[in-house]
Amino acid sequence: MVATEQPLHQSFPEKSSVVDVQGNTVETLKVENSSAVESALSSGNVSHNPEAFRQALNKVLYGRSFYIPSFKIHDGGPAHSSHFVREEKMLEIECTCVTPEVVLKASGHVDKFTDVMVKDVTTGSYYRADHLVKDYCNEKLEKDVTISAEKAAELKDLLVVLENLSIEDLGKKIKEYGITAPDTKNPLSDPYPFNLMFKTSIGPSGQHTGYMRPETAQGIFCNFNELYRYNGKKLPFAAVQVGQAFRNEISPRQGPLRVREFTLAEIEHFIHPGNKSHPKFSRVAKLEFLMFPREEQVSGQSATKLCLGEAVAKGTVNNETLGYFIGRVYLFLTRLGIDKDRLRFRQHLANEMAHYAVDCWDAEIETSYGWIECVGIADRAAYDLRAHSKNVTIQKNMVSISKEKKKVYQGSFTSSVIEPSFGIGRIVYCLCEHCFSTMPSKAGDEQLNVFRFPPLVAPKMCMVFPLVKNQQFEETTRLISEELTSCRIDHDIDMKGISIGKRYVKSDELGVPFAITVDSETPVTIRERDSKDQVRVSLKEKMTWQDVWASFPHHSSHSCASSFNHHGLNDEGLSC
Amino acid sequence: MVATEQPLHQSFPEKSSVVDVQGNTVETLKVENSSAVESALSSGNVSHNPEAFRQALNKVLYGRSFYIPSFKIHDGGPAHSSHFVREEKMLEIECTCVTPEVVLKASGHVDKFTDVMVKDVTTGSYYRADHLVKDYCNEKLEKDVTISAEKAAELKDLLVVLENLSIEDLGKKIKEYGITAPDTKNPLSDPYPFNLMFKTSIGPSGQHTGYMRPETAQGIFCNFNELYRYNGKKLPFAAVQVGQAFRNEISPRQGPLRVREFTLAEIEHFIHPGNKSHPKFSRVAKLEFLMFPREEQVSGQSATKLCLGEAVAKGTVNNETLGYFIGRVYLFLTRLGIDKDRLRFRQHLANEMAHYAVDCWDAEIETSYGWIECVGIADRAAYDLRAHSKNVTIQKNMVSISKEKKKVYQGSFTSSVIEPSFGIGRIVYCLCEHCFSTMPSKAGDEQLNVFRFPPLVAPKMCMVFPLVKNQQFEETTRLISEELTSCRIDHDIDMKGISIGKRYVKSDELGVPFAITVDSETPVTIRERDSKDQVRVSLKEKMTWQDVWASFPHHSSHSCASSFNHHGLNDEGLSC
Repeated sequence: MVATEQPLHQSFPEKSSVVDVQGNTVETLKVENSSAVESALSSGNVSHNPEAFRQALNKVLYGRSFYIPSFKIHDGGPAHSSHFVREEKMLEIECTCVTPEVVLKASGHVDKFTDVMVKDVTTGSYYRADHLVKDYCNEKLEKDVTISAEKAAELKDLLVVLENLSIEDLGKKIKEYGITAPDTKNPLSDPYPFNLMFKTSIGPSGQHTGYMRPETAQGIFCNFNELYRYNGKKLPFAAVQVGQAFRNEISPRQGPLRVREFTLAEIEHFIHPGNKSHPKFSRVAKLEFLMFPREEQVSGQSATKLCLGEAVAKGTVNNETLGYFIGRVYLFLTRLGIDKDRLRFRQHLANEMAHYAVDCWDAEIETSYGWIECVGIADRAAYDLRAHSKNVTIQKNMVSISKEKKKVYQGSFTSSVIEPSFGIGRIVYCLCEHCFSTMPSKAGDEQLNVFRFPPLVAPKMCMVFPLVKNQQFEETTRLISEELTSCRIDHDIDMKGISIGKRYVKSDELGVPFAITVDSETPVTIRERDSKDQVRVSLKEKMTWQDVWASFPHHSSHSCASSFNHHGLNDEGLSC
Repeated sequence: MVATEQPLHQSFPEKSSVVDVQGNTVETLKVENSSAVESALSSGNVSHNPEAFRQALNKVLYGRSFYIPSFKIHDGGPAHSSHFVREEKMLEIECTCVTPEVVLKASGHVDKFTDVMVKDVTTGSYYRADHLVKDYCNEKLEKDVTISAEKAAELKDLLVVLENLSIEDLGKKIKEYGITAPDTKNPLSDPYPFNLMFKTSIGPSGQHTGYMRPETAQGIFCNFNELYRYNGKKLPFAAVQVGQAFRNEISPRQGPLRVREFTLAEIEHFIHPGNKSHPKFSRVAKLEFLMFPREEQVSGQSATKLCLGEAVAKGTVNNETLGYFIGRVYLFLTRLGIDKDRLRFRQHLANEMAHYAVDCWDAEIETSYGWIECVGIADRAAYDLRAHSKNVTIQKNMVSISKEKKKVYQGSFTSSVIEPSFGIGRIVYCLCEHCFSTMPSKAGDEQLNVFRFPPLVAPKMCMVFPLVKNQQFEETTRLISEELTSCRIDHDIDMKGISIGKRYVKSDELGVPFAITVDSETPVTIRERDSKDQVRVSLKEKMTWQDVWASFPHHSSHSCASSFNHHGLNDEGLSC
């Protein structure tokens, strides 16, 4: 059943004031007549007094932060949410997608989360202004053999700074180059900002504006106070949210890489602004990988391999915590199967950063579309917590949301936050590209496609085939399938009577690391995808692929045997 | 890292036509010059020809259904999605929340998914018409001692059929009873329908209307053709989607139980309309639990214990597949910790069913708010597939979406669908109520709260405390924590120097089944929440709580020992 895998979460309508009242009622009742309350609350028997039962329950549910109103500090939320702690000691939170305007006004998204648009003055078609300028430059550089070296240099320079041009400058360039609507060649309007959030209205009156969240982070910031309290009022701590985010792109391009709805995983790691060291930084300090600092970009150089520890020591990366997460993201992506030679960490240019960031590094992955930003690791400093706390109506319990009085050493401060933000869909797409390859079949008449997904991420670990249609083999196939299910190994059965060779071709194309062919009742043949090596294994054994290889009769495929060690096979292989 | 736990999915912008074109291009290239293509595609080296590489990749990604355009049959989707097969052989799918109008027009939601609203004619405040009538009846029945027996009977009857009244009848009742706006006593407008979907617009022009999906099911129906193909064009098969759904309630009430955004888990089990038997029905046929068929409701009786097999045999439950899922839902909910005596399956009245259902049973759970619908198990028959296939522009590949030619035995047919739909948040809230109890402390001066969550669903399995602040104990605590993490046992450490008694109180209030107190370097004390039994266990052992109890010195808490067996502790206990 699917539901068992859901965390214990729920969204709530406006409740904070109700809960406070109910909490107070319970307190009052307790003082006035504690034995009466006790009997009303005994062991889940609600028939005596459902209201009192619910009050006691709510007091614990809210008091112990099983539930937190989503945007409690702004007190205008249509719905609320909850959080639970995860294995990695991060606090997991799930907030609503529909977000009241007040939250996104405070965060700056209502005013600043825009792209620049132009309109075909005749047909009314819309275009992204920067895309048109980019296309113009690229086409000129590629196809116009007559342009001067000076002009070419100008266009190249423009491409580098394009994302950071002001609306006015974009308009000037469009006029200067005589850029027209690509479909009709009609003139274009002056550029103007277009807010990228999906707008809706909450409730029946149409008066309460809401937006689909453009990032998941704001739900965490608005709950900072609760999370901080849950963590025993200690810094640092981290909260995480995985969920849908929505951006009403003017004209989505690049297939799966720029879409209007996507899954984000955002970690908000809150730290004291005066101490951005990280206790586990030494574990990643020796990593070396491609980095592309701001200065190298501006001076036209390429990304180079840097040692992360040195990059932090020299100040290239602003602080240890930012560096720690850069290192962790590197390890994460390469473990998934991203090619380390097509992965770089690029620092944002000073004028390129989002309105909330003070330093930011993007994990960029090279694909057939070019270098794609897949993870952003930003130091948002105190921007968000300050913005929300400035925006709230100051009442009791609220002014403390982002402040702590350190009586001895210093005055108040606002927590800083380091945010690794993962575009899950982009990572998955890039993984598909890096794992994909094709080769001609031996006969040369066919393309064979393979996804070399590491077992860790392969959608299916194993295929099971009976060699021929035969009751005994099919029965053994079913037994193996049940055993694999009980070991929680994702697999599929293919009973269709096509040849084993064809089934291996299909299995490779689906990216399945192992295939089991039932060619007798007890030993069966296991084939490993990348090496094409085969072994015969008797049933009722549980071991890793390395054990299997060492213990059983096997057949090495000479053509590909060398790729086996490269495969990154590990304990996540076929063991259970 | 969070992202590793995400399935391999992604949302796509309009792509189906692009992919077709790219697929054709690859075909053409292959025929014209296969060796050139082969070299361009070799082993992920994209620098030779990124376009050709991407074409080959896309052909496999779409051809093998790694990705499916979300609302492909309606061909107007702003975004798209993908699916992968799950352990239970259901196909898992993830579709977008923002849904183009054409999809929800076809499904009937644009026209029929409404609540009836009235307006305070002076202030413009909104109310749900049925809520006002309900409140009027309840108040009359509870507080007006002067009403006649006849009148009381009339109001009680009205309450039973209230949800099914037409707009006109609701209006008549409001007039007849002289119901006014509850806050102001002003007159009310005539009732009128209000669509419950959140409306937005897609893209920059404002011309493309979209809605936030009111259920996840439509994403599955629109992909039926792809899923059917993926399943080898065989029925039955099931697809599942877990995700957010959105309903713009007029006035949310009942705290966590009626919210505007919530998590739904929907299974769509497609079957041949001529054969609704289920091969595994015998596994649930002997279950007995509270059922509340239509007839018993209409004649004013209560729910009674029925044997599921008999209910299907007698035709009370329409068919075996519907019955199978009712049984599976019963097992699922009781395994989570829902009290079987406060769980009933209520059949929808004929005029109560949603516009798409032909038979429907709700799993209802009794709480302090009354009986709450938590799971709906509906036979939607062929409604949805017919609706979508009628609505599409008929083109090649499309007319087959919901039809299959059986050449020998019969003509075409449209697959039926049985849909179990789980309101995850409601189930979780009901579970909180059923697991919650309070009792006075021994001294009688305090309320002690406990959530008796079964280990299967407890947000944390274990707390770890050092008995006193002491470097050795704290070190042992950290070692235990690392061991638990490596076994993927969710737990928390509490190093704060309050008394062990207080820490147990807090641990019980958080619903944690086990607490480990580090009171020496090795053995340590493990306490079980519900029995309060304690055992001393040396480290480096891995066993279940039953093993632990049988093998180690223990201390039984006389006050609560009897509740231990009731606890439902099982292999999911402390083993790893």
